[in-house]
Amino acid sequence: MQAIGIDIGGTKIAGGVVDEFGAVTGYRRVPTDAADPAALETAVVDMVQELAAGRRLPVGVAAAGFVDASQSVVYYAPNIRWRNEPFRQRLEERLELPVVIENDANAAGWAEFRYGAGRLVSDMVMITSGTGVGGAVVTDDRLLRGGFGVAGEIGHLRVVPGGLACGCGAHGCIEQYGSGRALQRMANEIADGGGIGVPLALAREAAGGALDGGIIARLVSENDPGALAALRQLGGWLGQAMASLAVVLDPQLFVIGGGVASSGKKLLRPIRAAFLDHLPARGYHPEPAFAVAELGNDAGVVGAADLARLHFGEHPGEYSPSGRP
Amino acid sequence: MQAIGIDIGGTKIAGGVVDEFGAVTGYRRVPTDAADPAALETAVVDMVQELAAGRRLPVGVAAAGFVDASQSVVYYAPNIRWRNEPFRQRLEERLELPVVIENDANAAGWAEFRYGAGRLVSDMVMITSGTGVGGAVVTDDRLLRGGFGVAGEIGHLRVVPGGLACGCGAHGCIEQYGSGRALQRMANEIADGGGIGVPLALAREAAGGALDGGIIARLVSENDPGALAALRQLGGWLGQAMASLAVVLDPQLFVIGGGVASSGKKLLRPIRAAFLDHLPARGYHPEPAFAVAELGNDAGVVGAADLARLHFGEHPGEYSPSGRP
Repeated sequence: MQAIGIDIGGTKIAGGVVDEFGAVTGYRRVPTDAADPAALETAVVDMVQELAAGRRLPVGVAAAGFVDASQSVVYYAPNIRWRNEPFRQRLEERLELPVVIENDANAAGWAEFRYGAGRLVSDMVMITSGTGVGGAVVTDDRLLRGGFGVAGEIGHLRVVPGGLACGCGAHGCIEQYGSGRALQRMANEIADGGGIGVPLALAREAAGGALDGGIIARLVSENDPGALAALRQLGGWLGQAMASLAVVLDPQLFVIGGGVASSGKKLLRPIRAAFLDHLPARGYHPEPAFAVAELGNDAGVVGAADLARLHFGEHPGEYSPSGRP
Repeated sequence: MQAIGIDIGGTKIAGGVVDEFGAVTGYRRVPTDAADPAALETAVVDMVQELAAGRRLPVGVAAAGFVDASQSVVYYAPNIRWRNEPFRQRLEERLELPVVIENDANAAGWAEFRYGAGRLVSDMVMITSGTGVGGAVVTDDRLLRGGFGVAGEIGHLRVVPGGLACGCGAHGCIEQYGSGRALQRMANEIADGGGIGVPLALAREAAGGALDGGIIARLVSENDPGALAALRQLGGWLGQAMASLAVVLDPQLFVIGGGVASSGKKLLRPIRAAFLDHLPARGYHPEPAFAVAELGNDAGVVGAADLARLHFGEHPGEYSPSGRP
């Protein structure tokens, strides 16, 4: 059974038709103006109609924000001017297709669980470290949605009381210590300090004064000590947050995704070391595994489509849910 | 359908026969020597045989410690000399009855979910604040067990990096800031400070130098400013921990149990105030409710029995699971 997945980002909409093995056909992306919700809605409708080509396929739409427990209403979206937007109903009326709305990090994490690094476990926590820190939690083979639909906002787990101010209005969230943006801050501080920071400082100068994630990743791949030190700081914070998450959620596996995951084992090692250093009842507490995400940029599309397939597959005779491939 | 619940504590074993409405008959408790695992096992066997009186009832046994995901093996128990103890198999061999093992905080939280403060919600977090801090998580009407069976150890969520040393070997766990023992520490500090602490200091002197939970609760009930200040400190930490838990788990309800819960709304108010002060995306994030536990000391017995009934009810023809009353 095929399904359509749509992933609404801050600057583009991506979509595709996804089969029950997670393979995407007809993948496409178009730029969008997040400041114009009407144009955004029309762009989604156009893309779904192209992809469906007259077929009655279930549609999963992923977007950044708080989605209610019935997967219908976007309470709040940070990048789009939506407040209590009944997006599911509006799309279903225009498309005449069954639609569910999903948080984008949940959709990407679900794809990783079904078809990527998490495909052999039942309990997984995915942390996506990009501009911010996103997350998804799978427990007992189910996506954790929570009582109001907004579970798994792992980026706002607090790691430092009274710590750095976060865009969410709180202080000390892991997003300020474990994101790609935090890595840039750490790399800049090391560059400013001289010593092992000199190559970072030179690279920053050559790049016109800004250390972006690509430059840091390149220096990490060359084993530059300053860039590795920044990555270890980042991994240390992520590992500490994971120790708190482990006592609550007890996953078999932590998956790290997003831009910083390109450093692979060089990031996983300091994460695991910090995790073990801070794990309560270490030695008695079962230890989860750590992996980097395996799926690429279309994870949101794949996950949104799969969740739509499973959602509508619950109604017998209409769609049949695929088993786990 | 009746079931037997057994709750193994550090100094006593309690048990009873529990019906599908949570009513307990035949409740009994005996002292036990946790340092003698063989005697403890025999005491459990004797109590179950008395309670069963020849009937084939499912048995749920709650104990403090890490229980594996198949509810069979106690990896580690802090109070009993058990390490990888196959307790389920040993009891089933001696009793010839179906047995499941459950973490005691999970059992008590499940009882609260089924028959107490949580009976009208689907997603609940219970925090029990006594000597330590225990927890249980219910998501989507299911007890969260985690990938290895050890989820919901909320007492070891870290709230202060490099904070107070915890018995688990880590530092800064909420157990050190949100437990009944932490409340005593806070009350002692206020007593030492003079001013509003004078009544606490006098009560401490009258009690022979130690401020126990009962004295603090009495002063709270009399609206003593020093005792109320200590309770506000405690509630502040609990509320901050709940803000982190809410972004991950998104419960509809937080339930607070244990000795400190006797202060009721005087504790819930500072908890809720701190929660809202630290809630990420406040104003957009749905707000859970807060309540004190409704069940008493037999919650562990009730929850263990109910979980055994539901567990064995999964096998058709043998036991039928009760619906939620």
